[in-house]
Amino acid sequence: MKAKLQELRSRLVEIGDLNAAAALLYWDQSTYMPAGAAAARGRQQATLARLAHEKLIDPAIGKLLDALQPHEQSLPYDDDDASLIRVARRQYERATKVPAAFMSEFTEHNAASYEAWAKARPANDFKAVQPYLEKTLEMSRQLANYFPGYEHIADPLIDLADYGMKANTIRPLFAELRQRMVPIVQAITSQSPADDSCVHQRFPEGKQRAFGLDAAKRFGYDLNRGRLDKTPHPFTITFSITDVRITTRFKADDLTESLFSTLHEAGHAMYEQGVRLEYDGTPLGEGVSQGVHESQSRLWENIVGRSRGFWTYFYPRLQKTFPQQLGSVPLETFYRAINKVSPSLIRTDADEVTYNLHVMIRFDLELALLEGKLSVADLPDAWHARYQSDLGVRAPDDRDGVLQDVHWYGGTIGGSFQGYTLGNILGAQFFAAATQARPQIPAEIEAGQFGALHGWLAENIYQHGSKYTPNEIIERATGGPLRIEPYIQYLRAKYGELYRL
Amino acid sequence: MKAKLQELRSRLVEIGDLNAAAALLYWDQSTYMPAGAAAARGRQQATLARLAHEKLIDPAIGKLLDALQPHEQSLPYDDDDASLIRVARRQYERATKVPAAFMSEFTEHNAASYEAWAKARPANDFKAVQPYLEKTLEMSRQLANYFPGYEHIADPLIDLADYGMKANTIRPLFAELRQRMVPIVQAITSQSPADDSCVHQRFPEGKQRAFGLDAAKRFGYDLNRGRLDKTPHPFTITFSITDVRITTRFKADDLTESLFSTLHEAGHAMYEQGVRLEYDGTPLGEGVSQGVHESQSRLWENIVGRSRGFWTYFYPRLQKTFPQQLGSVPLETFYRAINKVSPSLIRTDADEVTYNLHVMIRFDLELALLEGKLSVADLPDAWHARYQSDLGVRAPDDRDGVLQDVHWYGGTIGGSFQGYTLGNILGAQFFAAATQARPQIPAEIEAGQFGALHGWLAENIYQHGSKYTPNEIIERATGGPLRIEPYIQYLRAKYGELYRL
Repeated sequence: MKAKLQELRSRLVEIGDLNAAAALLYWDQSTYMPAGAAAARGRQQATLARLAHEKLIDPAIGKLLDALQPHEQSLPYDDDDASLIRVARRQYERATKVPAAFMSEFTEHNAASYEAWAKARPANDFKAVQPYLEKTLEMSRQLANYFPGYEHIADPLIDLADYGMKANTIRPLFAELRQRMVPIVQAITSQSPADDSCVHQRFPEGKQRAFGLDAAKRFGYDLNRGRLDKTPHPFTITFSITDVRITTRFKADDLTESLFSTLHEAGHAMYEQGVRLEYDGTPLGEGVSQGVHESQSRLWENIVGRSRGFWTYFYPRLQKTFPQQLGSVPLETFYRAINKVSPSLIRTDADEVTYNLHVMIRFDLELALLEGKLSVADLPDAWHARYQSDLGVRAPDDRDGVLQDVHWYGGTIGGSFQGYTLGNILGAQFFAAATQARPQIPAEIEAGQFGALHGWLAENIYQHGSKYTPNEIIERATGGPLRIEPYIQYLRAKYGELYRL
Repeated sequence: MKAKLQELRSRLVEIGDLNAAAALLYWDQSTYMPAGAAAARGRQQATLARLAHEKLIDPAIGKLLDALQPHEQSLPYDDDDASLIRVARRQYERATKVPAAFMSEFTEHNAASYEAWAKARPANDFKAVQPYLEKTLEMSRQLANYFPGYEHIADPLIDLADYGMKANTIRPLFAELRQRMVPIVQAITSQSPADDSCVHQRFPEGKQRAFGLDAAKRFGYDLNRGRLDKTPHPFTITFSITDVRITTRFKADDLTESLFSTLHEAGHAMYEQGVRLEYDGTPLGEGVSQGVHESQSRLWENIVGRSRGFWTYFYPRLQKTFPQQLGSVPLETFYRAINKVSPSLIRTDADEVTYNLHVMIRFDLELALLEGKLSVADLPDAWHARYQSDLGVRAPDDRDGVLQDVHWYGGTIGGSFQGYTLGNILGAQFFAAATQARPQIPAEIEAGQFGALHGWLAENIYQHGSKYTPNEIIERATGGPLRIEPYIQYLRAKYGELYRL
């Protein structure tokens, strides 16, 4: 049994190493690769992805998993060996249920779809992408149908990103959240918008970088096992638990761009750095789901990074960094600027409050498409209608509507949006639980210290990696299931004070 | 036949892609990897190397090669398909003749041997490494014996680095070279040494970098398919023909350190960038041997980069770059400084003239060890004796003697030195042939232009990659076999003028 377990582990780590090398090919492509190398790099990435997939669906792994089942069942649920077998089985079953031919067809279709979108967006030509989107919808349904026994057709797609979450549990939660947020947004937007001109001055890149990285380090991001580079789109990437890198991008005339993206990615990265080292290279050695991951990035970016407490300590330092720009700007003005709420057309530019409304629109549209209640042809109008009713804005055309981002034009319809709002909800729920367990957290934050918060997150979330399911993590860390109440309370308290609601 | 050839090619490119990813893991480790990642990175590198090796020795490749033999023989020797089959067979046979168990034992021994050397060198303790070196010698012999039928036991080891070269052809060549160089060295060193204080001032790193990279670009190093980074030891590394990177290191008080290492590595890199793009990812897609590779690096570094013609154009630019340091230093003083000849103890610090004497000592000692004419116990004394007779210097102890570098403590004894001097010889031979074919080359160099030289090298050497053997390349490019005469003429002309010999 020990030899079989060892063989399973070796095979899994081999797959992990291939995936790590593939990740490095991607990181390098995004950071330092010379432009002329693109074609060869694409081939190399495809080769490594294929080899990793071949190794994962090797029937030998299935046999090992079968042989190890009695051993697994003889161990407690939270034993590390039992957990490795359990989580490996989940990955194996996911990988083997989808035919390789389907996956390669889908990959090809996604590439073609992306190309079509890249041309259609500047031309405001939804008709040009409509047939691609129709095929994407059909293939997304087909993908779901490789996992029969679902309650809702979106469930298998949601499950791939947020294991154990279901359309029919998320939908009422989101409906309630929307119902309670729309009045808050309306109350805020009936007032004159905050003046955020102070963050739109000229800020030299080097100083922006140093300030953001210093804050990330104080949070607990370990630069001995990480680093910060520049890319067109910020991301976090893991090569091992001892090598989790983040990237950011700078705008000379927007202080918030790199600062909050750095804090956001540092949140993701601390999660991956905090996994128990013994899990390195195995399926246990990474964050468990999109929603739990996003809870960590949003917690550090927003609940901490945009809080009054955080800036009580950091604003004087920021003023020293940028004396010309901010020396005479009061903390209150700055605090209001970085928390400006304003309904807008583009999800990725949205503020902390309205962001969820964007996400929930996309989630609902995805479900309606998958259910067959909405046709792709009717999608642009449905989009405009929902933006009008939920956010009170309407894009002048499809460029800032249904064509606004690459989602849906490079992956499934279904499964890719719920994680963002789950993350916001969970971030608040985890923060509330942490603060209840360690009441010194707010005072520490005001003193520029984060040990109590980072320690609670590491103990309750980070260290477990993928050992527990998202729902188990939530239950263990907060003593109950996913709840929107802490998030609503957080928003009410923060924005109620800011806007005297 | 076409399908079989296609399958062979796919398998070879897959191996190439794995090797490229492994190379990227190494490059990243040397440049940007956070320190804490070392252990996991070591595991990832080992995994990729093992997978690439497993794929190469797959009997399916042997069967394809057998099946393709009639096809190969029906094609002209220099047909690309025939060449691919021929060179792949050579790699396959090399890889399959050595048992995997031996290779992994040797890899382990090398790691242990390296550890022992790293401790023994500062302690000046040759006795501590002696048993490791004895085992290395024994294993080097064993490795050679996996390739029976050799004329000299070093031949299989030489063959791995410099295909087709043999101890008994190199030895008389080196003996003659040594015989003709020792008097030159003695004549030079009987004079007072050149004053090189002008290159030992303070030179800011950024300006050093920009100047060296500019020269490399003018040579023909393509930054759209390459880049320059900093590492403790300079190297060139290839991920594809469209991505060949170089590294350098800087010394604030030595202008020559980064400048000539950049030009040296650019020489290697232009060779790899110049291979025909159709060969990318296959065994044809890289430089053919250590000696031919070194001929390119040394040609650009020394024959061009340390020439009076090169500095006729570049020295005024260098003076503009460093006006305080060099503004009042005449070209002649600078030219003598960068061509200072002085017998020294350390090979890697040696000048262009004495460098070969170091290499030839090592080559002869390797042969004597392999032949059993010299025991490892007697190696330190043999070392001192040869340095005394050839270079007229004697290291105070073994630290700067037999322990001076990691060679022999991390690889075979045999095969790893001849390439350096072959490179110097070949560099001069190729340059002479290029200048004969394109007489405008010297005038171009004086005008800071390198198109004629780069073009000749690309046409006669670079484009072929590994299609032709080193001896074929030499024959095709120069119309005859390897000859030392052009190198001796080059040294006589250059140093005769400098030292009025």
